[in-house]
Amino acid sequence: MTELTGKPVSDRICEELKETVSALKAKGVIPTLAVIRVGEREDDLAYERGLKKKFEANECNVVIKELPEDVTQETLDNVAKALGEDDSIHGILMFRPLPRGLTDKNIVRSIKAGKDSDAMGMENMARLFAGDEEGFAPCTAQAVIELIKYYGIDLKGKKVTVVGRSLVIGKPVALMLIKENATVTVCHTKTKDLASECRNADIIVAAAGSAKMIGKDHVREGQIVIDVGMNVDEEGKLCGDVDLDSIKDIIEAGTPVPRGVGSVTTSVLLKHVVQNAARSV
Amino acid sequence: MTELTGKPVSDRICEELKETVSALKAKGVIPTLAVIRVGEREDDLAYERGLKKKFEANECNVVIKELPEDVTQETLDNVAKALGEDDSIHGILMFRPLPRGLTDKNIVRSIKAGKDSDAMGMENMARLFAGDEEGFAPCTAQAVIELIKYYGIDLKGKKVTVVGRSLVIGKPVALMLIKENATVTVCHTKTKDLASECRNADIIVAAAGSAKMIGKDHVREGQIVIDVGMNVDEEGKLCGDVDLDSIKDIIEAGTPVPRGVGSVTTSVLLKHVVQNAARSV
Repeated sequence: MTELTGKPVSDRICEELKETVSALKAKGVIPTLAVIRVGEREDDLAYERGLKKKFEANECNVVIKELPEDVTQETLDNVAKALGEDDSIHGILMFRPLPRGLTDKNIVRSIKAGKDSDAMGMENMARLFAGDEEGFAPCTAQAVIELIKYYGIDLKGKKVTVVGRSLVIGKPVALMLIKENATVTVCHTKTKDLASECRNADIIVAAAGSAKMIGKDHVREGQIVIDVGMNVDEEGKLCGDVDLDSIKDIIEAGTPVPRGVGSVTTSVLLKHVVQNAARSV
Repeated sequence: MTELTGKPVSDRICEELKETVSALKAKGVIPTLAVIRVGEREDDLAYERGLKKKFEANECNVVIKELPEDVTQETLDNVAKALGEDDSIHGILMFRPLPRGLTDKNIVRSIKAGKDSDAMGMENMARLFAGDEEGFAPCTAQAVIELIKYYGIDLKGKKVTVVGRSLVIGKPVALMLIKENATVTVCHTKTKDLASECRNADIIVAAAGSAKMIGKDHVREGQIVIDVGMNVDEEGKLCGDVDLDSIKDIIEAGTPVPRGVGSVTTSVLLKHVVQNAARSV
């Protein structure tokens, strides 16, 4: 099996942004992402550290808006509104799910597409649905497409099975793959014969959120398997939706977890923030 | 083959609206759809006549805003805006495609979800993508679902192949079928082996816009075939995407064209207008 790692994909995205970032710097603009974090969930904090590192390494900024777990809806909405109006902020990311009692409804409705770097807002969802490339797609879904393209995998006419139908990965990646001329099948918990749907595909995109659920029954020779899962296994180790060890001698190529799609996601986020900063000048 | 006609589906939808329409009438409200028509395309005029008949038969109104083919963008946008602000209008439908030189962009962005009876606006597209049932789906896509449900066809775990990826039918119906727990494959012009993708399904939804393209190579025993096509054959007769004559002895059930999905569409439109009128009181 050829290992399709995320690092070279991520490096190329960052490389391609350098010129724009320099040009912006010359004009006194540092592309800046604001992160809204309510509470201190360990995985949010870990993701935040990764973000900061990535942005700083590329001469961009991350500003953290930390709110207590018992923040009121009004305060949360006002923080988002203020960031929306702040010209020094070029992108906004809010960690979800929010704690119980809080809703993202107002932000989803009001966030402007340009600052909506991870496509949580209605406008970007609509643009994604319409196939309008002016909008931003959810970063992880786009990371899948960037990775596939980086490795020169042609999608036209290919059969792709997407496992999962979430708003942040399954559905957007399916729409993006359809736009790329793949024949796409969307599977989920109610699918009757998942193994056969997977074996039928040229490419499998696993985005079910269930540790190591895709194994040797689901694959055949010649396939490419993209693992979007981010789970913790019984030993407390990070793992994907794919049990890669059990299929690595069968499939043609696959992404590891960690070091796969996940490492492309923050670079896509950076790209969205830089793109919007460039448009705002 | 059992013929799945649209009339009983349509009749039931209208029947279920009666009480709401009466209650609104008692309050002096007549649910009213405004139709924006630019020019005089024959198929727009035919659809318009059907709409008027349907709405009048159900004690609702249709108001036609007829604009000349050389109307300016500004006038078109202003007409749409005025209808959006007019409390006596509960739904807006605009015939598309618009003549050359005109764009629907401003309307798509600004139309409020409640009056957007056929889901051309961003808000309803986003809601459809998010699976939020507060919004309105495109009428024909919803007509497919209403027809399937009327005939008691269970979608859970069923394999459905959708032929077509348009914004008005293919993509919305695929999302709606996924929400109904079907395992959905979206095919299109770049699909390599369409016949096999179709034979593999329990249900085929043909929405390709190509006369009689689905024939006996595409089907097997036991299947249900829903035809969303509205084409004109070589003899000038209305026909679907499915060559029903050639498959009627093979499949289990199918919709005719005309008298199938198309006859449900205007009832769904009526439903959306009545629902919004009821919400507005």
